[in-house]
Amino acid sequence: MATMNDETDAWLKSSDSSDYFALLKMPTIGADPLHLRDCVQAATWLKKWLGTIGAEAELLLPSGGGAAVSASVPVVFGELKGGEGATTVLVYGHYDVQPPDPLEAWQTPPFEPTLKDGRVYCRGAQDDKGQLFAFLCGVRALLAAREGRAPVNLKFLFEGQEESGSGTLFRLLDDAGFRKRLAADVLLVSDTGAAADLRPAIVAGLRGVCHFTVRLAAANRDLHSGEYGGLAPNAAQGVAELVASLHNPDGSIAVPGFRDGIEPPTYAEQAAAEAGFATEEQLRADIGTEPCGGQLGKTPAQRNGFEPTIEVNGIHSGYGGPGSKTVIPCEAFAKLSMRLVPGQSPAACCDAVKRHLKDRCPKGMAVSFPEDGGLSAALRLPLASPLFRLAEDVLTEMDPRGPVFLWDGASIPVVSALKAASGAAPLLVGWGQPEDRIHAPNESYSLRQFALAKDWARRILAAF
Amino acid sequence: MATMNDETDAWLKSSDSSDYFALLKMPTIGADPLHLRDCVQAATWLKKWLGTIGAEAELLLPSGGGAAVSASVPVVFGELKGGEGATTVLVYGHYDVQPPDPLEAWQTPPFEPTLKDGRVYCRGAQDDKGQLFAFLCGVRALLAAREGRAPVNLKFLFEGQEESGSGTLFRLLDDAGFRKRLAADVLLVSDTGAAADLRPAIVAGLRGVCHFTVRLAAANRDLHSGEYGGLAPNAAQGVAELVASLHNPDGSIAVPGFRDGIEPPTYAEQAAAEAGFATEEQLRADIGTEPCGGQLGKTPAQRNGFEPTIEVNGIHSGYGGPGSKTVIPCEAFAKLSMRLVPGQSPAACCDAVKRHLKDRCPKGMAVSFPEDGGLSAALRLPLASPLFRLAEDVLTEMDPRGPVFLWDGASIPVVSALKAASGAAPLLVGWGQPEDRIHAPNESYSLRQFALAKDWARRILAAF
Repeated sequence: MATMNDETDAWLKSSDSSDYFALLKMPTIGADPLHLRDCVQAATWLKKWLGTIGAEAELLLPSGGGAAVSASVPVVFGELKGGEGATTVLVYGHYDVQPPDPLEAWQTPPFEPTLKDGRVYCRGAQDDKGQLFAFLCGVRALLAAREGRAPVNLKFLFEGQEESGSGTLFRLLDDAGFRKRLAADVLLVSDTGAAADLRPAIVAGLRGVCHFTVRLAAANRDLHSGEYGGLAPNAAQGVAELVASLHNPDGSIAVPGFRDGIEPPTYAEQAAAEAGFATEEQLRADIGTEPCGGQLGKTPAQRNGFEPTIEVNGIHSGYGGPGSKTVIPCEAFAKLSMRLVPGQSPAACCDAVKRHLKDRCPKGMAVSFPEDGGLSAALRLPLASPLFRLAEDVLTEMDPRGPVFLWDGASIPVVSALKAASGAAPLLVGWGQPEDRIHAPNESYSLRQFALAKDWARRILAAF
Repeated sequence: MATMNDETDAWLKSSDSSDYFALLKMPTIGADPLHLRDCVQAATWLKKWLGTIGAEAELLLPSGGGAAVSASVPVVFGELKGGEGATTVLVYGHYDVQPPDPLEAWQTPPFEPTLKDGRVYCRGAQDDKGQLFAFLCGVRALLAAREGRAPVNLKFLFEGQEESGSGTLFRLLDDAGFRKRLAADVLLVSDTGAAADLRPAIVAGLRGVCHFTVRLAAANRDLHSGEYGGLAPNAAQGVAELVASLHNPDGSIAVPGFRDGIEPPTYAEQAAAEAGFATEEQLRADIGTEPCGGQLGKTPAQRNGFEPTIEVNGIHSGYGGPGSKTVIPCEAFAKLSMRLVPGQSPAACCDAVKRHLKDRCPKGMAVSFPEDGGLSAALRLPLASPLFRLAEDVLTEMDPRGPVFLWDGASIPVVSALKAASGAAPLLVGWGQPEDRIHAPNESYSLRQFALAKDWARRILAAF
């Protein structure tokens, strides 16, 4: 009888693990120009890898030229023809990762894949190099079992800027010729999570996102809190008042107009979301405190899946070092991001929040918005589709509990764009778990998750 | 007729300027252990300087020993006997300065005294090496005119930790023998400001101060604002709500019990404070925005002199770099300082604010107070005293407008302690102006202010 250790040993000897580790070792921080070479190296590696399974692949950059283009991170695009008239599947993933900071919190080097107790620790072990590459291993296994013949027409699209705005890919999508090359029936994305206990999950919705920076300016310099206390307006207090004004005491959003246009979920969607969502106990154990964000009186599934949020991602003003410095700060910054649900216009939501802040700007201060970013609408996929029924069947074969449907609180802005460009129906199935700690130190991915992602790829591609 | 340039040239050739510049060049950042040697050097220099005018001086450190003592910054204490039965005057000042950060904002090197348009630019040019040393130049001139005989018994006390809590001095004050040596009739302090247009000012009150750091903890880690938005409590939003809760919409303090015990000013005090205070226009020009801090409906003089404040000196949580990082911060910090008026107990005020914050701690979060500092009560000096009348006469000789009385919004915690230790009546007359920019880059002190401080020393000491 094969033990767990035997299985691990076998995996470690496979090309699945050696290739995976090779990909992980490249520090593909797509947002950092210092890591552009690593990104190009990883893209080149993926292109060659696709060649080994018979796909024709190339690296793409937007035409036009100039410094911005030469500095950008390439997209990998590959094709592997199946039979005439077969379904065409576009497989999307990203090879870039978040920066590893704070470095001192890592127990192993962030770009040295380390296997411990059945989990691989490395930045990108899951998000998204792990999920992407496990899927590719499934493709390789499927082709090997069919003497290299693909059951579907496969198109591969891997970008290196998902964590920083998908700049290259969005510019490529401006080109009609490129959009035509993407034409597909199904868009398969491996960048999402499974439900609790690794029960399979199909994403039925994603929230949209927009974000900006608020600057509040008061006096012409930081002032002595004694000499000017009671006289000068305080920007740190002002930003606190502004930020506090965004929500009502019950946690609901207090910004006029922010909820305009929201399309509420159907009963079926709500029921399915409740069924697939983590329990309060699971959430509490995960985050280490009460899962009490959002509006009082709504369930966690509602608050995360069907309600918008305004989050303060950062607030900074005045002195932050040891001891005290009795100043009245003259400026303050807050970083805000909003998650949006179907029916909300990202631009209108940004405008509503900015107008709210301007209208409430404390006396003696001026509010401005020095940085803007990302406008992406929510994605809502129809529950009752043939594609979802097929995926449901495949996932029930893999796990008798069958899949749950998730309305993911996060955003993958590129999915809406790829849906529009390719004409394909999105199918988002992934195997992430909270304990993977993506975007945080000591990110990891278990061999069990890797095996499930690989198995999913093999089965779904064979099922079309 | 002597021109301005002639006067400047004469001053530059005098020992007043060369000694002053020598003292300024020593980077006496008392709070920074790396500058302990510079502080010891400056203390030694002052001791020797006192010797040149005939005073017996020494450097003092608390007895006891150990690393803390060897690392502490010495106090300079000197004595110069006057005639039998003469008034004893204790002269207090400090030779330490604030750190010069941010360095890039200085137009000349912060420890290179630079004369430009009648002003000396240097960290400490005013606070307090300039005010202290100009006073000493007055003492020297007075003695020179009297063949070295002092009209009063002079005691000098110069510390090197005023900007960082007066540690050495407070420890010395624990010693009854030292307190006895400080016994005096008058405590002369040169560390305050004049009124607008350099009209002389006598400080009739100082606010007290206390401060602490607030930490707010939420989840066990920073969380993805999409995956956890609507679920996890947000520490940045929590700290904003807590800070905003400290004040009412009219700017008054909302902390229960905070105003307990306040002794309101008399009509005479209020009238004198109004007469001596900067106008709204002057304040606006100084700070570059509306002087609208504090409670609506009270005058600037009331708000700065007779009202307590709670100021946010800093607020920090989550991401603060360029662009966006869509996290839900798991912790947040705020630095609070309170200015107190007569009748308020510093310890009780700190407790009241902490209780207020604990009572309002947002759900899912925990509030704690990792740092505490400085508990100093307000100082109220009687308007109708013979000492004030004498000072008024001297200052009216110097300036026909006569002095105003100031209730200084700032705090000099050591004054109350020295008053108690020496039994002396405090007399705080200084020549600071807002444009000196103390504690900020490009601090400066004009030759005019230097001359006034010197003249004041000569005249007041001769008048006792």
